[in-house]
Amino acid sequence: MAAPFRIGIAGLGTVGCGVIELLKKNGNAIADRAGRPIRVVAVSARSRMKKRICPVKSYRWASDSLDMAADPKIDAVVELIGGQGGVAKRLAETTLKAGKPFVTANKALLAHHGHKLAMLAEKHGAPLMYEAAVAGGIPIIKTLREGLAANNISAVYGILNGTCNYILTAMRETGRDFHDALKEAQKLGYAEANPSFDIDGIDTAHKLNILSMLTFGIKSEFKDFRTRGITCITLQDILFAQELGYKIKLLGISRRIKNKIFQSVEPCLVPADSNIGSVEGVYNAVHVEGDFSGTELSIGRGAGGGPTASAVVADIIDLARGRKVLPFGAPAEYMKKAARAGAEDVFSRFYMRLEVVDRPGVLAGVSAIMRDHGLSIEAVTQRGRDPGKPVSIVMTTHMVKQKDMEEAADFIAAIKSVIKPPSLLRIEHF
Amino acid sequence: MAAPFRIGIAGLGTVGCGVIELLKKNGNAIADRAGRPIRVVAVSARSRMKKRICPVKSYRWASDSLDMAADPKIDAVVELIGGQGGVAKRLAETTLKAGKPFVTANKALLAHHGHKLAMLAEKHGAPLMYEAAVAGGIPIIKTLREGLAANNISAVYGILNGTCNYILTAMRETGRDFHDALKEAQKLGYAEANPSFDIDGIDTAHKLNILSMLTFGIKSEFKDFRTRGITCITLQDILFAQELGYKIKLLGISRRIKNKIFQSVEPCLVPADSNIGSVEGVYNAVHVEGDFSGTELSIGRGAGGGPTASAVVADIIDLARGRKVLPFGAPAEYMKKAARAGAEDVFSRFYMRLEVVDRPGVLAGVSAIMRDHGLSIEAVTQRGRDPGKPVSIVMTTHMVKQKDMEEAADFIAAIKSVIKPPSLLRIEHF
Repeated sequence: MAAPFRIGIAGLGTVGCGVIELLKKNGNAIADRAGRPIRVVAVSARSRMKKRICPVKSYRWASDSLDMAADPKIDAVVELIGGQGGVAKRLAETTLKAGKPFVTANKALLAHHGHKLAMLAEKHGAPLMYEAAVAGGIPIIKTLREGLAANNISAVYGILNGTCNYILTAMRETGRDFHDALKEAQKLGYAEANPSFDIDGIDTAHKLNILSMLTFGIKSEFKDFRTRGITCITLQDILFAQELGYKIKLLGISRRIKNKIFQSVEPCLVPADSNIGSVEGVYNAVHVEGDFSGTELSIGRGAGGGPTASAVVADIIDLARGRKVLPFGAPAEYMKKAARAGAEDVFSRFYMRLEVVDRPGVLAGVSAIMRDHGLSIEAVTQRGRDPGKPVSIVMTTHMVKQKDMEEAADFIAAIKSVIKPPSLLRIEHF
Repeated sequence: MAAPFRIGIAGLGTVGCGVIELLKKNGNAIADRAGRPIRVVAVSARSRMKKRICPVKSYRWASDSLDMAADPKIDAVVELIGGQGGVAKRLAETTLKAGKPFVTANKALLAHHGHKLAMLAEKHGAPLMYEAAVAGGIPIIKTLREGLAANNISAVYGILNGTCNYILTAMRETGRDFHDALKEAQKLGYAEANPSFDIDGIDTAHKLNILSMLTFGIKSEFKDFRTRGITCITLQDILFAQELGYKIKLLGISRRIKNKIFQSVEPCLVPADSNIGSVEGVYNAVHVEGDFSGTELSIGRGAGGGPTASAVVADIIDLARGRKVLPFGAPAEYMKKAARAGAEDVFSRFYMRLEVVDRPGVLAGVSAIMRDHGLSIEAVTQRGRDPGKPVSIVMTTHMVKQKDMEEAADFIAAIKSVIKPPSLLRIEHF
């Protein structure tokens, strides 16, 4: 058997320890698949003294992780520190400039600096591998970059954040409101003490941006698309959606519309009995539409030490086998900024919930605005009657132009009997 | 850009023409991803004169496809003829012996001769690629061989035949019996005039055998496992299953039980609201359980010119990029016959439908046999009452040993009031 493939690991949290444990447990089979043993030769982390979930004393300690980039006895650097800048970014740049393979689980880094890092990687002939950055338990990076490489892909959609999907599932199943469900998710370790990164959709946006770059070969930045989280979703929305045959999911959506790209992170209604509608709890799912492959949906675990380690080590095996890929499949120099599709270009069905004072003529006023904007209503539901008091009205539309819908919603918000700005959610059919 | 990667295609049916069309339509993007253009330089088929769905006149015609194996101007041979022996097998052997990459969509060939061909491929350093042999629209071969390569996989399950899934879906949705649904599938082109290959489970068994070899690194042959199709499934079974919250799916199951492998093709009950339960119509699905990745389910199109061509060209892109894989991930010489788990080793829940004469004491007799075999009944349902006439009784069990269940079913079949042998289906929970 060939000489061991030697790796240095920077970052020894859940994922770093997961990788060490995985290589220990499945090392023999992995050596067969990689054609050579994979050996951890050096580790580094912020503090050497910290108590860890895995023993690391037998590995050489690199007091500065950047030293691993230059070390000729290390074949690849594995970055599991996290964060879009700082040490992680410097380590990526230093490693790639040294012509050495760089493996990372860092979605923020890739989402913000993916194109520049890919340019650097290609310039120096160094692989940049990031399977673990999106939906660890689903090999979606490899699937898009290689498995579906023959296709012109028109859309990639997904449930990309397990925390949000857990909260939405818990609200629907147990009838609790958002804050209760969030608290439970925190108690179970599914949500951070500061949950903003997840529930405001930022984590989803990071992952979606990576998928967009890879799928459409575009340079994509955060400011290019809108990101909404799930804090606006009420239990009432979930119950109304259910009544209409839908579930609410936080989706990352990237879709080609003519020569433009529509990209968005937002909570959407999806048919309850669809494949993606059946994805519950902490599970992630990615839906891809190829011109020859047709639609494909993969469901799996998105986060956690095990699934992320599985993805990291898959990348390492590829490297050890000498399999070469470009970070985004095709040369990074061909990647261009895409023209962006906006509300003018997008047609969708919509769900709109209104809080109104229950008095005669409100519905007539709302309906007139809808009509004046050429918006075709599919169904109207009102829960209860309580003259003079606030009630909820829900409308769903047929396919309409998003811009028209948003304009109408602004007019509706201005009606005196409408208490709050309408809650507007896209209905996505798969 | 590097020199073109030149392929010869043997077989010009739906898939062969699909590959030609795909390379024409997406050729530019594919050249970027492959690092070089992919060019069809020769084609062959049984008859040159036959009318085809794609024009092939511009390609060199190889009157004997075997000549392509030796032709130094052809970098890879793509076999889309089909059939487990004959020309396809000779072409595979000749190509691999010539040290040339061989790409195929031929599940029968791989299922029957996969191990020998892999040995040949490795001996001559020639890649053997077969992504298209299983569930074309899902890159499941790459996923198992590379994407989840870090895992010790405990189970791979799947809906691997779109024809059967279409028929079962149609029966449930429209209340038709098996023969009506089959006729419709034939009319729509989803089933062959001679449907035995699909409905008797043989096609599923081929694909399952490929997945088993790849997942568990075992030499596996057909005689090693039981294959049942869907002809035994009545509309009544489907309705009873629905009442109990299940759908019936033809599954290929391969699972590690201690040091043995349980492998089987059979119709099973799956929870209607599970991810795999939501897979309807011609769609395929593959479920994988990895020790680190957790469970993953991929849903996509299994057959047809487009999805199969997508898979074939993905393999060709890998070859053109110089990405090297062993056919079954690890060296073929390490593959061994597996010890097989039998009815003695397998614990499951079961569904049993009985046709009995409606007379006092029948249920007591059946229940006594169940009790005597230590089988714990979960629920009993009887539809209608009609003293002295045949009625259906359905029972579901808790987890029981398959052997005990089968023995009990034999005893129950011998009861005088039991009109036909019991229909016994496994309940699979995902």
